[in-house]
Amino acid sequence: MRIGVFCSGGDAPGMNACVRAVVRTATAVGHQVVGIRRGYQGLIEEDFYWDDPSARAMSLRSVSGILQRGGTILYSSRSEEFRTDAGQQQAADVLRRHGIDAVIPIGGDGTFRGARALARLWGGHIVACPGTIDNDLSGTDFTIGFHTAVKTAVDAVDKLRDTAESHERLFLVEVMGRASGYIALYTALAAGAEVACLPETPTDVPDILAQIQMLKNRGKKSILVIVAEGDDCGGAGPLKNRLEAAGCPFSMRVVTLGHVQRGGTPVPEDRLLATRLGELAARSVIAGETLVMAGEVHGSLTLTPLEEAGRHKPVPREYVELLETMAN
Amino acid sequence: MRIGVFCSGGDAPGMNACVRAVVRTATAVGHQVVGIRRGYQGLIEEDFYWDDPSARAMSLRSVSGILQRGGTILYSSRSEEFRTDAGQQQAADVLRRHGIDAVIPIGGDGTFRGARALARLWGGHIVACPGTIDNDLSGTDFTIGFHTAVKTAVDAVDKLRDTAESHERLFLVEVMGRASGYIALYTALAAGAEVACLPETPTDVPDILAQIQMLKNRGKKSILVIVAEGDDCGGAGPLKNRLEAAGCPFSMRVVTLGHVQRGGTPVPEDRLLATRLGELAARSVIAGETLVMAGEVHGSLTLTPLEEAGRHKPVPREYVELLETMAN
Amino acid sequence: MRIGVFCSGGDAPGMNACVRAVVRTATAVGHQVVGIRRGYQGLIEEDFYWDDPSARAMSLRSVSGILQRGGTILYSSRSEEFRTDAGQQQAADVLRRHGIDAVIPIGGDGTFRGARALARLWGGHIVACPGTIDNDLSGTDFTIGFHTAVKTAVDAVDKLRDTAESHERLFLVEVMGRASGYIALYTALAAGAEVACLPETPTDVPDILAQIQMLKNRGKKSILVIVAEGDDCGGAGPLKNRLEAAGCPFSMRVVTLGHVQRGGTPVPEDRLLATRLGELAARSVIAGETLVMAGEVHGSLTLTPLEEAGRHKPVPREYVELLETMAN
Amino acid sequence: MRIGVFCSGGDAPGMNACVRAVVRTATAVGHQVVGIRRGYQGLIEEDFYWDDPSARAMSLRSVSGILQRGGTILYSSRSEEFRTDAGQQQAADVLRRHGIDAVIPIGGDGTFRGARALARLWGGHIVACPGTIDNDLSGTDFTIGFHTAVKTAVDAVDKLRDTAESHERLFLVEVMGRASGYIALYTALAAGAEVACLPETPTDVPDILAQIQMLKNRGKKSILVIVAEGDDCGGAGPLKNRLEAAGCPFSMRVVTLGHVQRGGTPVPEDRLLATRLGELAARSVIAGETLVMAGEVHGSLTLTPLEEAGRHKPVPREYVELLETMAN
Repeated sequence: MRIGVFCSGGDAPGMNACVRAVVRTATAVGHQVVGIRRGYQGLIEEDFYWDDPSARAMSLRSVSGILQRGGTILYSSRSEEFRTDAGQQQAADVLRRHGIDAVIPIGGDGTFRGARALARLWGGHIVACPGTIDNDLSGTDFTIGFHTAVKTAVDAVDKLRDTAESHERLFLVEVMGRASGYIALYTALAAGAEVACLPETPTDVPDILAQIQMLKNRGKKSILVIVAEGDDCGGAGPLKNRLEAAGCPFSMRVVTLGHVQRGGTPVPEDRLLATRLGELAARSVIAGETLVMAGEVHGSLTLTPLEEAGRHKPVPREYVELLETMAN
Repeated sequence: MRIGVFCSGGDAPGMNACVRAVVRTATAVGHQVVGIRRGYQGLIEEDFYWDDPSARAMSLRSVSGILQRGGTILYSSRSEEFRTDAGQQQAADVLRRHGIDAVIPIGGDGTFRGARALARLWGGHIVACPGTIDNDLSGTDFTIGFHTAVKTAVDAVDKLRDTAESHERLFLVEVMGRASGYIALYTALAAGAEVACLPETPTDVPDILAQIQMLKNRGKKSILVIVAEGDDCGGAGPLKNRLEAAGCPFSMRVVTLGHVQRGGTPVPEDRLLATRLGELAARSVIAGETLVMAGEVHGSLTLTPLEEAGRHKPVPREYVELLETMAN
Repeated sequence: MRIGVFCSGGDAPGMNACVRAVVRTATAVGHQVVGIRRGYQGLIEEDFYWDDPSARAMSLRSVSGILQRGGTILYSSRSEEFRTDAGQQQAADVLRRHGIDAVIPIGGDGTFRGARALARLWGGHIVACPGTIDNDLSGTDFTIGFHTAVKTAVDAVDKLRDTAESHERLFLVEVMGRASGYIALYTALAAGAEVACLPETPTDVPDILAQIQMLKNRGKKSILVIVAEGDDCGGAGPLKNRLEAAGCPFSMRVVTLGHVQRGGTPVPEDRLLATRLGELAARSVIAGETLVMAGEVHGSLTLTPLEEAGRHKPVPREYVELLETMAN
Repeated sequence: MRIGVFCSGGDAPGMNACVRAVVRTATAVGHQVVGIRRGYQGLIEEDFYWDDPSARAMSLRSVSGILQRGGTILYSSRSEEFRTDAGQQQAADVLRRHGIDAVIPIGGDGTFRGARALARLWGGHIVACPGTIDNDLSGTDFTIGFHTAVKTAVDAVDKLRDTAESHERLFLVEVMGRASGYIALYTALAAGAEVACLPETPTDVPDILAQIQMLKNRGKKSILVIVAEGDDCGGAGPLKNRLEAAGCPFSMRVVTLGHVQRGGTPVPEDRLLATRLGELAARSVIAGETLVMAGEVHGSLTLTPLEEAGRHKPVPREYVELLETMAN
């Protein structure tokens, strides 16, 4: 069996670990893995990656030493061309022409929509892996890359706490998450922030201000507010302006963490999750599964239909309440 | 209600986060928390910690800025005196004399045995938290400190891989775990090691040697073997001698990570887990629970009888198999 | 002798190490050190810090465990009040009233100007330490905090390289430095960036574009441009717009590192430098030196008149040329 | 001109950055660089590395993305064969046969001795770079890799301080340095250790014990002793036994950091130094220099005869005194 593997959409730490697991698992039982560069765009352009030219496949050695590397050796992209019928037809033709029997796409909900579109034109098997820092997919407790993004954000907020305390300031820290507050909420809890503004809940400026004032009265020297980029306040900058206008008693500074959250060596949790899910995806696609996503729910490996997996997973309510209890 | 909190046994990153959660949770609903220094020994010696002398309690402010600190502000110890009847009687007397109604011990199975002994002499409530890097307790998927210990070990092994590759060497890395292979197994999987030697399984030197030889034949330039200190081979040093005697084809070096694994700022997972469990323990003890451990199983908070919680939790068999598939 | 010590202006990692060295050095030879909180503002407000009330001084123990902490336990500020004659007079009065014979201010050129103003109204001795991440002072090869800021910036750029490569993108990374290109230049060299835009040199957009195009033609998959906030292009955002308008062949993203650069545990170089300079400042002020800054030039300890020390230190021309050679 | 470059002896973080600088500098001015794998052994075995087969040279691209990687892409070794006359003759023959006009060895004093032996049999030019974590070479203030090794050691000691404090313990930490105390002394100063045992000075157990006792009397809860592996006490283990026998008032633990110190991504200082020295070595060898080492002294680039460069550089006396002042 010839299995294509590719990364699509925003890159996430652990994608390489996932590719490695796919190659090692499939190769160990006699199948061939073809790397496809730059996601759907590379598929359309026949941009393949293999180091064993006789088998036209990736060797066991090709994935040595990539487990700990950020980014993806297969590159990623968001393909405009693949959104067209012609692009999708072209991708299906390429797969047929190169004798590829199955694909394992690694990415988020956009990647899964692409996979479902492809399945209408091509009869091969598709088992996806959840590779996105946002942790906004159903069918898995965590997505590959999420834990690393949180670690990066928490490390940054730990540093900001130093300088916030020294100057008795309030920092507004904007983290990634257009539709999902997972990174913001986990970062706030783990970094000991006082407030988290999430896309899932309305942001009430007078409420926040009242809490800040109460904490100042209790002697708190610095305040940290974590803001998801997709929060309804419009992000950290607009929120600062509104807090200022409303009379915030602290001097404020904004920090936007940005793409740093996508990079770096994956933390152990992401390496392990990516390895487990890559192995599961390879095993499953060989066993004939299709149009499902490999996931881990409550510690157990599971397969979820792609359609369902792409649905938004809400942040846990009890974590929001926990933050309120701790921010004192 | 007056609640005592203390850390006992080997320290673990995240213990401070747990103490902070206990103080914030209990204080928020009008109870008082008394810090007890140096575990059972400090209890016997009435070595209390509080910063609010009128309430003789820890204030909300006393736990500010400790979430991210390694070690424990309450200090820890292994008390010989508490193993005696007189010591236990003395501890119970101290609790009564100081009007302490309940205690929250943070530690491992030894700490839980101590708590059960105390309960025979003292009628207060006891809800424990699992604070140990070993992850060898039942009743919780992970113990507080485990994820940080794995991160520290993986960082070290990542560095060793650099130098192992440069010199085409085999490194034997000894990690903590007297009775449990959790740290060794997770480290091996996350660091891409080729072999893990665990206390739970017999270590077969000819088998390991055969695998090493096979990997060398396939062109592998360096080999990493992770050895739990409690493995039946006797640790990394003895294993090196046996591999050498058996004709290992690589030049070998031993590294023993040691107590470094106990320190460092807790990773986000440990800060979060410690916060959740500290909050649960405080809530539960206030609600009248006793002789249970706060834990997290499959993402949900649970209480497990101390007797059960102290039982050894075996490493997951599927992780051992996953390592075998990946080590190619 | 009673010596006041304070931090002023933007905080820098290593300030705590410097305070520790001042306290330990002076105390060891029988003098007393008084901590002054929040720089000149705290001086005006008599906001002192000491833990030994009988001596009204900081004890040896008061600085235990602060060597590795970011920020400053003495807090810092930029005081508007001290810019007025009345404020300066008030500060001088406070020093006299509390029997303080000498002060050791830790900060940058604004701090040194303040010290010189104070010296016109107060006869005590003043020996300053260079505490600023900008490395823009004369009289010392490096300022306390610079190496840590570079480390933080380089770590961030290393992560961005992962994601830049995965998406074949150009990243514009804005680092601190209003008047000085030191952080930008060192970051660019150490992170292997292709371009650095410095306040010291005019930024020529067509030139940069030509270099980017040449690198793309040679097969480069990603480009990193480091921009000092004080560069004449106006920062990373405006530069992106101009490159876009001029037809840059890469998709671009902007990341502004911001205040993260001020925090974090100081790297060993900053801990060592801060310790050496704190010790030198204490020794020198005791020996009767005044209106000088403690510095390290070519590995040797030196004292430089404050007036001279405050002068801008240009970036080394050979480092700019080295970057050009390496960016290929 | 064809220039060979290789790494020899113990690997050091920054060797890759140095190789990159050599390739980029020489290639930019029209020369060719041939990678030689595994040092002198690879030279004897004609184990070359190049990615441009027509030029039989390393391309600009071959060194992309290696600046931040630990270890060395050229591998290193200690060659027994090269210590023989036949081996040296063979190496010289290989250089002649492959038209190599000059070599740039990266390593320590053993590497330099090898270079001088080679020069007796081969007329090409040799300009070496100081690549060793030990910082024991003359002719340069710092060797490539030293700063990273210190950072790794200090990070470890910071973690040990957490657990030392929690248990009120004394830790003996053994760091690398057979003949040189540089790593031990810098680590002790930067980590705030109380004692450093260096190969350069006799270790007096009663003296150390008296200091430990004095610190305990003053209320110190934990003690850190840094021991260079080449100290005359025989290392951390033997020192522990002697302190125990002499009645040390603390419970003690030993940690041996080992090869972890050789790995990891180089810190900015090492990347910069390696880049500067690689560039200087390439420029110098092209300009006709020979039998010298590229170094940086007091911020300036210098060339030092290999014979001189190999001489032991003593630790600075003032740093030893500084540690005594600070350890209070």
